[in-house]
Amino acid sequence: MEKSRQFVALLLAALWLGTLSTAAVLIWVLHWRGGLAWDSGLLEFNWHPVLGTIGFIVISGFALIVYRLPWTWNFSKSLMKNIHAGLNTVTFILMVISLVAVFDFHNSKKIPNMYSLHSWIGLAAVIMHALQVALGLCIFLLPFTPVYIKAFYMSIHVFTGLFIFGMAIIAAEMGITEKLIFTLRSGSNVTLSYSQSPPEAMLVNALGIFILVYGGCIFWIATQSEWKRPPEQVKDNTSTEEAPTLNKTNVLEGSMDCDLESTPRLRQINLEDVGQRATF
Amino acid sequence: MEKSRQFVALLLAALWLGTLSTAAVLIWVLHWRGGLAWDSGLLEFNWHPVLGTIGFIVISGFALIVYRLPWTWNFSKSLMKNIHAGLNTVTFILMVISLVAVFDFHNSKKIPNMYSLHSWIGLAAVIMHALQVALGLCIFLLPFTPVYIKAFYMSIHVFTGLFIFGMAIIAAEMGITEKLIFTLRSGSNVTLSYSQSPPEAMLVNALGIFILVYGGCIFWIATQSEWKRPPEQVKDNTSTEEAPTLNKTNVLEGSMDCDLESTPRLRQINLEDVGQRATF
Repeated sequence: MEKSRQFVALLLAALWLGTLSTAAVLIWVLHWRGGLAWDSGLLEFNWHPVLGTIGFIVISGFALIVYRLPWTWNFSKSLMKNIHAGLNTVTFILMVISLVAVFDFHNSKKIPNMYSLHSWIGLAAVIMHALQVALGLCIFLLPFTPVYIKAFYMSIHVFTGLFIFGMAIIAAEMGITEKLIFTLRSGSNVTLSYSQSPPEAMLVNALGIFILVYGGCIFWIATQSEWKRPPEQVKDNTSTEEAPTLNKTNVLEGSMDCDLESTPRLRQINLEDVGQRATF
Repeated sequence: MEKSRQFVALLLAALWLGTLSTAAVLIWVLHWRGGLAWDSGLLEFNWHPVLGTIGFIVISGFALIVYRLPWTWNFSKSLMKNIHAGLNTVTFILMVISLVAVFDFHNSKKIPNMYSLHSWIGLAAVIMHALQVALGLCIFLLPFTPVYIKAFYMSIHVFTGLFIFGMAIIAAEMGITEKLIFTLRSGSNVTLSYSQSPPEAMLVNALGIFILVYGGCIFWIATQSEWKRPPEQVKDNTSTEEAPTLNKTNVLEGSMDCDLESTPRLRQINLEDVGQRATF
């Protein structure tokens, strides 16, 4: 009961921080940066932080913990896999739009692309996310993928999923830093520069903190093995024939660790459950 | 054997990336930024990235995996705890010097302190690291701390240790971004600005990638439960009397998960081993 309360508190904190992040980035671009448009100018650029925050931080973070929600434990495995894959596909689409916006803006203003550390890590994260989605779909959703491949790949999928989310947070914090320095500088059309801490800088720094703490909540929830979806509540038995080494005792003992790569150990658990545990 | 090779490969990669990061930051400040001095000017500022990289990234990252080295598994628990605490104390001292350097520089140049997101997250990380070291020393190294407090705190210590290391990486990447924008700009004493990708920018962007991938190696090693120090090889029995619920079967089965907060489960494992597992 104590642990359940902790889970609910952390989940509510994550939801609140995700909402705060979304609100802060919208206030930033709508109130201080002129709003949103698709004009190859600064208003088009503004889609980049908005979609980056909503897509790669809020939605992709929530996708990492979607299997942990106890209210979904009666849903079928296939449904949960599709929700997880769907959220990550939405993230990918939003990130492609956000990249088109920033490349359009750069090209129209003759600003070089891909020179900053933010752009290197950010684009690498989007490409890795795309590969992660593609491999995840092929391996966990195609019915004919051999179970030993699922078991081998699952631990890599889990670690890289968390790592890509970490890269997204790093890219977001660097992007905030870049944008505040470029826009709030002496000589540009602002009353106070970044170093004089105007209200815009305070709000956007706060956005950076919201993103960081949101990430902390997601990582905490995603690394607690006792909050995993219980295997015995799996309703969908479509792939039972793929579980040659099912050992009910192991499964019910809940002795699975959150080791991200231990294929030999994974083979002792319920292999039917492999796809479902892709975010643990 | 396969897993041992993976461990050695990852450890060598981490050592190589830590060395590359140290070399890159030294080349940066010595070749392009005028070197190091304690003059309240730019040369004093240069201690900030150098000590930040060596202390908060390389040393503090290595401290996270020090219990995982198989060559140390015959060393006593107390020795390993002291090595872990010692490395983190060295990190703290280096970070204090690196902060004094940057505050000195800012004050002498009348640049405001603590306005940037880098400074907010970086200082928060140093303060949290200091608290982590202090609490770790009190709880895991003082002999009279009750075992139930060690067991309760251990999982928090593990998560916050990894989270603070993540904050250090984020702060480093933002610091690199800030410094490159401030120094490589049109009008300052440089031939090419950051957006024109001069060699200095390429090297320092590469430093950011080395730091990121080093962090990835450390997180991978630190989250593999099968690479934990085996409890049965504990040589130091000084606190055997503190292990009221020792269950040899559980310990030898290696059924401990890397759940970071599951106090009830922890109480079923060898409580003597609690301090030792503080980095897992």
